[in-house]
Amino acid sequence: MPISPRRHVFFISDHTGITAETLGRSLLSQFDHIDFVRTTLPFIDNGEKLAHALERIRAAAEEDDARPIVVSSLTQPELRARLAEAPALVLDVFDHFLPPLEEELGLTPARAVGRLHGVDHAYGRRIEAVNFALAHDDGLGTQLAEADIVLVGVSRCGKTPTCLYLALQYGLKAANHPLTEEDFDRGRLPPAVMAQRGKLFGLSISPQRLHEIREERRPGSRYAELATCQREVRAAEVLFQRHGIPFLDTTHMSVEEIASTIVHRQGLTPRL
Amino acid sequence: MPISPRRHVFFISDHTGITAETLGRSLLSQFDHIDFVRTTLPFIDNGEKLAHALERIRAAAEEDDARPIVVSSLTQPELRARLAEAPALVLDVFDHFLPPLEEELGLTPARAVGRLHGVDHAYGRRIEAVNFALAHDDGLGTQLAEADIVLVGVSRCGKTPTCLYLALQYGLKAANHPLTEEDFDRGRLPPAVMAQRGKLFGLSISPQRLHEIREERRPGSRYAELATCQREVRAAEVLFQRHGIPFLDTTHMSVEEIASTIVHRQGLTPRL
Repeated sequence: MPISPRRHVFFISDHTGITAETLGRSLLSQFDHIDFVRTTLPFIDNGEKLAHALERIRAAAEEDDARPIVVSSLTQPELRARLAEAPALVLDVFDHFLPPLEEELGLTPARAVGRLHGVDHAYGRRIEAVNFALAHDDGLGTQLAEADIVLVGVSRCGKTPTCLYLALQYGLKAANHPLTEEDFDRGRLPPAVMAQRGKLFGLSISPQRLHEIREERRPGSRYAELATCQREVRAAEVLFQRHGIPFLDTTHMSVEEIASTIVHRQGLTPRL
Repeated sequence: MPISPRRHVFFISDHTGITAETLGRSLLSQFDHIDFVRTTLPFIDNGEKLAHALERIRAAAEEDDARPIVVSSLTQPELRARLAEAPALVLDVFDHFLPPLEEELGLTPARAVGRLHGVDHAYGRRIEAVNFALAHDDGLGTQLAEADIVLVGVSRCGKTPTCLYLALQYGLKAANHPLTEEDFDRGRLPPAVMAQRGKLFGLSISPQRLHEIREERRPGSRYAELATCQREVRAAEVLFQRHGIPFLDTTHMSVEEIASTIVHRQGLTPRL
């Protein structure tokens, strides 16, 4: 087989490494059949730390008998120059994209380490949004009018993680209302929820998948039975349609896909 | 002034847009003094949607009287070719980085839309980690032995959002224990927490900042008084030192900085 089945990958940053990781994950996902061994080396902001990083890259190159892949978001020119000489394929985020931006914007970039995090405002808004999501999880809380979005769906369809992701990634205030037998019997949502009609968004899921998720939580329970899941999901979709609530089948979606789809469809403006 | 004070930026993706947004945010943070107007256009996966995106780019170019910046993670070659002709500075993630990777790995990439999200495993682990964080927030929960990390700190120092971020971004199970008067009086942590000694990590904060945060929550309370904050923070740091618990001053850090610093310092392995 001419292709190396295993390859070390390093995400190197003078800050958290999240930009390098996100970009790298996206690029590597385009290549199947390789067993990528991933390591993030964050906070590499001086020559000594870089020397340690270079040692690890060299060791990995020997172990694989192939050049490691390095995705770098280092900003300091002298560190980047040293990294470029490593026995690795170095993909340098700033090398590629900063020069055209500089030319376009007519400015020399600040190249400051970790500039991207406007701690003060973003931190406050994110914390506020997380607190809101926790206070308004599972039908709790009384400040629904303050919500940017209110998710509606049956138990275990993904409301809570989606609300938290909306808070952490977008700074949006997301509440959620769990659909219960009471809602189904009445055939309508509680008045406090209906008052937020324009902010309601439904999450649906395949009954089979819901059954699997609930089985893990309460094995053998009536709650987890496939028949229960089928009935609840059907009743939920009837409710969504009756009230004109837009909804999404989340069966094959990740949390970030659900969240970004909601932001997009509802035309929400991220607050971070 | 020769520099345009305002510039439209578009993050275009055939998937969630998170890769393009993360990279773009990092690049733009290097340029001060420009008022970037950001728009994410996710799920652009056919010619019709791209045509709408191109219209918005053209309208923005006319409005600014300058080329918009476009950060693209489109994967389909025909869509990327059309985007390249927009009246914009197009920074194409895949154009720059895929060719060297292809050459290095000796493979043609799959170029499938949204391949990066391995829904099954990652989704399950993330949900499990979020549920764990919620169940073990604020000293609750009884499965501390299952935790990857246990954060310790005074009320409002950032434990909860950090635990949730660790769960959503890294799939790690993070619990937290709030330090209370009882802990300070005893001069030690409860036995159930001490049993996880190797997993404990302290969060500290400047008393002034803590005072401001608490004032927003309970204005004028004794809880929020600067003197209370000073005493609690000092007592917490004494406890950390006595028990040999590593800790971090989070005063000037964002949630992702706190989380990635903990992952790095504790040598944790992300589970996603």
